[in-house]
Amino acid sequence: MTSATPADVVGRLTVEQKARLVGGASYWTTADLPGVPAVFLADGPHGVRRLDPANGAIAGADPATCFPPAVALGATFDVRLAERVGAAIGAEAAERGVGVVLGPGVNIKRSPLCGRNFEYVSEDPLLAGHVGAALVNGIQSAGVGACVKHFVANDQETERLRVSADIDERTLREIHLRPFQRVVTEARPWTVMSSYNRVNGTYVGEDPRLLTRVLRDEWGFDGLVMSDWLAVNDRTAALRAGLDLEMPAPGEARVRQLVGAVSSGDLPEQDLDRAAERVVALARRVHDAEGPADATDLVDHHELAREAATRAIVLLRNEPVARDGETTPAPLLPLAKDARVAVVGELARTPRYQGAGSSQVVPTRLDDALTALTQDFPDLAFAPGYALGREAGDDTALAAEAIAEASDADVVLFFAGLPDDAEAEGRDRTHIDLPTVQVDLLESVLDVNPRVVVVLSNGSVVRLPFADRVPALVEGWLLGQAGGPATADVLTGRVNPSGRLSETIPHRLADGPAYLDFPGEDLHVRYAEGVFVGHRWYDARDIDVAFPFGHGLSYTTFGYEGLTVTTGDDALRATLTVTNTGDVPGREVVQCYLGRDTSAVARPPRVLAAFDVVELEPGESRRVELTVPLGELSHWSTRDGRWVTEGGTWRVDVGASSRDVRESREVQVPGDDAVRPLTRGSTLREAAADPTAGPLVNGALEAMDEDVREMALAIPLGRMPFVPDAGVSEKQLADLIALSDGSAGRFKRTAAKVLGSVSARRRHGPR
Amino acid sequence: MTSATPADVVGRLTVEQKARLVGGASYWTTADLPGVPAVFLADGPHGVRRLDPANGAIAGADPATCFPPAVALGATFDVRLAERVGAAIGAEAAERGVGVVLGPGVNIKRSPLCGRNFEYVSEDPLLAGHVGAALVNGIQSAGVGACVKHFVANDQETERLRVSADIDERTLREIHLRPFQRVVTEARPWTVMSSYNRVNGTYVGEDPRLLTRVLRDEWGFDGLVMSDWLAVNDRTAALRAGLDLEMPAPGEARVRQLVGAVSSGDLPEQDLDRAAERVVALARRVHDAEGPADATDLVDHHELAREAATRAIVLLRNEPVARDGETTPAPLLPLAKDARVAVVGELARTPRYQGAGSSQVVPTRLDDALTALTQDFPDLAFAPGYALGREAGDDTALAAEAIAEASDADVVLFFAGLPDDAEAEGRDRTHIDLPTVQVDLLESVLDVNPRVVVVLSNGSVVRLPFADRVPALVEGWLLGQAGGPATADVLTGRVNPSGRLSETIPHRLADGPAYLDFPGEDLHVRYAEGVFVGHRWYDARDIDVAFPFGHGLSYTTFGYEGLTVTTGDDALRATLTVTNTGDVPGREVVQCYLGRDTSAVARPPRVLAAFDVVELEPGESRRVELTVPLGELSHWSTRDGRWVTEGGTWRVDVGASSRDVRESREVQVPGDDAVRPLTRGSTLREAAADPTAGPLVNGALEAMDEDVREMALAIPLGRMPFVPDAGVSEKQLADLIALSDGSAGRFKRTAAKVLGSVSARRRHGPR
Repeated sequence: MTSATPADVVGRLTVEQKARLVGGASYWTTADLPGVPAVFLADGPHGVRRLDPANGAIAGADPATCFPPAVALGATFDVRLAERVGAAIGAEAAERGVGVVLGPGVNIKRSPLCGRNFEYVSEDPLLAGHVGAALVNGIQSAGVGACVKHFVANDQETERLRVSADIDERTLREIHLRPFQRVVTEARPWTVMSSYNRVNGTYVGEDPRLLTRVLRDEWGFDGLVMSDWLAVNDRTAALRAGLDLEMPAPGEARVRQLVGAVSSGDLPEQDLDRAAERVVALARRVHDAEGPADATDLVDHHELAREAATRAIVLLRNEPVARDGETTPAPLLPLAKDARVAVVGELARTPRYQGAGSSQVVPTRLDDALTALTQDFPDLAFAPGYALGREAGDDTALAAEAIAEASDADVVLFFAGLPDDAEAEGRDRTHIDLPTVQVDLLESVLDVNPRVVVVLSNGSVVRLPFADRVPALVEGWLLGQAGGPATADVLTGRVNPSGRLSETIPHRLADGPAYLDFPGEDLHVRYAEGVFVGHRWYDARDIDVAFPFGHGLSYTTFGYEGLTVTTGDDALRATLTVTNTGDVPGREVVQCYLGRDTSAVARPPRVLAAFDVVELEPGESRRVELTVPLGELSHWSTRDGRWVTEGGTWRVDVGASSRDVRESREVQVPGDDAVRPLTRGSTLREAAADPTAGPLVNGALEAMDEDVREMALAIPLGRMPFVPDAGVSEKQLADLIALSDGSAGRFKRTAAKVLGSVSARRRHGPR
Repeated sequence: MTSATPADVVGRLTVEQKARLVGGASYWTTADLPGVPAVFLADGPHGVRRLDPANGAIAGADPATCFPPAVALGATFDVRLAERVGAAIGAEAAERGVGVVLGPGVNIKRSPLCGRNFEYVSEDPLLAGHVGAALVNGIQSAGVGACVKHFVANDQETERLRVSADIDERTLREIHLRPFQRVVTEARPWTVMSSYNRVNGTYVGEDPRLLTRVLRDEWGFDGLVMSDWLAVNDRTAALRAGLDLEMPAPGEARVRQLVGAVSSGDLPEQDLDRAAERVVALARRVHDAEGPADATDLVDHHELAREAATRAIVLLRNEPVARDGETTPAPLLPLAKDARVAVVGELARTPRYQGAGSSQVVPTRLDDALTALTQDFPDLAFAPGYALGREAGDDTALAAEAIAEASDADVVLFFAGLPDDAEAEGRDRTHIDLPTVQVDLLESVLDVNPRVVVVLSNGSVVRLPFADRVPALVEGWLLGQAGGPATADVLTGRVNPSGRLSETIPHRLADGPAYLDFPGEDLHVRYAEGVFVGHRWYDARDIDVAFPFGHGLSYTTFGYEGLTVTTGDDALRATLTVTNTGDVPGREVVQCYLGRDTSAVARPPRVLAAFDVVELEPGESRRVELTVPLGELSHWSTRDGRWVTEGGTWRVDVGASSRDVRESREVQVPGDDAVRPLTRGSTLREAAADPTAGPLVNGALEAMDEDVREMALAIPLGRMPFVPDAGVSEKQLADLIALSDGSAGRFKRTAAKVLGSVSARRRHGPR
């Protein structure tokens, strides 16, 4: 390409050309103008969905590898794996002429009901940010841009084009912006997608604070912001705020509108130029990038999809059960090689492997679990048991057949899950129950044979009322095109499961943080749970859950010991020894949580601060170091408008889940809490605590009766001149404040006076 | 008094005099100026606390009858009783020269931790409003003004002088303003007290919306607004907003400030005049009022205090237990006349009868429970068991003595409760536990004798981990000066208990609505629970509680039958027959709750809508009619900025508590939901539902694929001209909207075009 700068290129364009450049030219391409080649955009957080540019439909794309969706990648807790998946997606995109892949999605799962949860990583902002950053790093390593989305707080589908997510600033910063902040600062994505919704009443796409001050000025984002498809509400406001590219193709009406807005002065031309330059810069990046050297091998990618899927599967439960005639109870999993296996459930044969909506990939192949299991157990019996999309009572013959097959098996693999239409972009769920037909059948099967392994397929958590009754329970999420063989790998023990819950499985929907505030009303949704999303809520309120965040079993066991925590200038380092104490190789996800017992702000008992995956042979020990950047200790201070670290004692918990803490240490951390000089708004309590003014005020306070003192401490200094009998003058008050802010000169005489007047108040209190 | 109008009087005053008039002259009096006599103000939601005007202290007032505090009056659910108590307080006030009684307090108990909950009526806005209105009616019937407080959202003590209660408008209207609205509109109090705190960032005392537009313009308040003591932050802003009288006595500095503000134009003189006129009007009201004809009889008032206390006691539990050697289990209460009674607990001898802080009344006499019980059981044994204010382990000898006394009694009356310093104005609680020393002793007593009646004294709910272990449990709140004999009345069965829980007793603090958002941080407290305060929260989330709102047992039983519900122009009427099905006379609190299964807004399953007390002889039946004004069916529509009633099916539940519904009926109610004409912000879904435009849009939508249609329905009409291929012009869009708002002329041709263009979009969806 030319060496002209984007400003040079834009400088040569007419206003009309610039107006054309800041909108898509088709469903999937940007404009092709002199010096500015078009960029092809394709959906695909978990695979490339390249459609004809004139095609706005959801289905019908070119085939590409369908990797496990974000819900599954999140459950791997494995950023290296996520980066490899990203790189494979990037390579397939590059090969298909796609310049930007529209993913990953790192919105926070504040409710299990969000229809698009399967496209998102986690309820936890740290995990979502790390996996999202890894995906971006992977995609962009192939010379293709990523597009982190949906920025920000597009956490529901209901009224997504109009709803205002009403979020207090601390929650916005610590929870909902946080994964985007990590992705932007650590992986430098080429593009960000501005979301449909409003935040606190303002469309994100029209909010200069979010799109420019936070994203660019604070985080240093240097790429392009595009709209979600049809998300633009007011185009000129969006351009002024920093939304560069409007998608898909707003057409000639928009070009005319923008040209008019520049003429009338409603839209400063420099705002249009800035957006146009960013489109040019993106085109430059895309077309200058070097793609992967080698052609992609779809067989290799299928194997990578299978590997990722195995690592996403979470073994929730694997209780020992006795077989008839045997005395020693043993877990059902991994399956004994000689087991007489019955497979029940249509989902074993007809996999649900991705969610519905714009993320749908046309897979290069699709392997089901039944076929894979048949290779391991050629004599297995199969009964579909239920038909997908049908309800209880419809299929009594199917059910009867399944019960019969199950009754004399050594082990029943019961495939349950949500049908396609239960989870989709564009609408939210209204409950978290599995279809009644499946649960009823499961109960019937358990009545005839308790040796049941339930294998779940679902893109967001489901209620598991039967969890205590089934000896083994496998959470299979949506696993992409190789999910079938991956499931067989885990069930047979070829792969020892290491997936962990990236979202809490509650006992009931009503237990959850957003239960009363989802999806909102009157076009507003209050994020009433505040910072207490996901496990933070369940832990803070000590609510019993079915399976906690971070939980996942293995076919081996791991020991934790020797935790030490050291503090450095920029990070805490938690070091411990993890040992594989069982008989088979295994991977453990070591999790590090932070907490503190006293705090100026509300906190959950534990917040995920670091995690790592360690792979160990039987008997092998390894020293694991988890690094917690000190920034993870900060909270957003609404009062100060910045990140603040509270000093003092912090607790570092290391364990195998948010509720399986194995070792714990306390550590002292220096804080950066601001010392605020006294003002008229400061209370007597604050005056008493002031480094310079405090000692003088304290003497007076100590003379008060205890009941009155407690109330007096709450009085703002500015009201003292109006307290009867106190005799504090405005002058004295100003002098007291000057003591604190260092501006005082002859403060001793003044101080004595203030002391006297405060003391005079000792009998008096407010009511 | 003169016949000059307040405006006449104020017209004759200088600016300085007016500035003096809008501030108190002493702790307890307003200014005495020409034509304006001073008004004496006295604390006393539950009794008159007349102090020397120069005395700002909390204790040391003239004696007056100490009636049960609001926490107890709320538990009576008896508005006629509350009005009698109010009248007695008013009479005592009049006799003492008090012109305004500073009560009642009708703030909502959003957390059990609020230090001042004992001064408030309930967690429920309907109950708080009715009892508050009754008190005002009673007080003012004696020719004395009431002062409803603390307006509004002063629901915690922590940082009450600075904290901002951040509340969404629906919650503010439906929950926190609601009791004030009822008191103001139904009882017309002479004064309102503006609270210390801010609401959504603005001091209530400086908020013209709350103090003038809502209070006066919407509700018709015609009295005076005074500040809470030392609550004024910015006096000129307060005057502009509608805060008339600053208390207590801001002094000469303030007079000078206000005179200067009028001179400089910062304070329009008419705002000062308006406030001054209201002070004059209040003085006129006070001094023109006719006091009670007869002198008050303090013996009668003590008896009224006793009657009110008996009705406030809630019998939480009264399970049958077998006595040694007897076969038929029987409840312990009412106490058998010949029972060998052991009384354990210092609180039986040293009653806690009111809370600490400005509401403290110096009682005319004080009768304890131990003395009263000794009259009924002259041979009772007493052991203090614990010393108040001391902790477990301090008093092993006291405990041992109590256990010994308890071991061979027929029944143990165990008095437990919170010590004085556990609940006080000016600070909040940090937990809801009883002192460990008491709980430990109780467990030890139960170990030697399970026949225990626990009698509680507490101003706000306490955790009852022992509830399942004690056969009988009596909630005695704080009962005023005659609480001791009242307790004896109920325990012996002289009075059959009829109190009901005006606040839910949860199993744990962590189960409650405000647990994570109390008392806030960074000087803000988010009312995150929204409208789900109190039982609304527990019911909506289906959380098990120790004892639900509205619960209370009796020594008899009541049958409910024959519920019918009729709808009138202004009210629903629920009529049913209540029968005393037991052996003794009793009073039943019949409660009526409303609910609906589908709603445009989040709702709890049941909201209290009406209640009444019915007194029945054994075997007697009575037809009870509960009237629910249609206003109780309204919710505050944030979108429309007004009260809206949803039409359709409502459920009317009548029962003995919020979780003891006896009869239920569905009723059809006409709604007044607004029909909103289409705008550019309306979605295709709304267009499809539009009465005139809908049928035309629907045809097009039906032609779409199902998956795309769901997403397309969410698109705002204003974006249609920018949807690729849709071909909807701005002109066509305007015509479609004109179809809806009735301004369309030649709409048929246009409609056909729109139809076609929407149809063309059928293959395309957003992502």
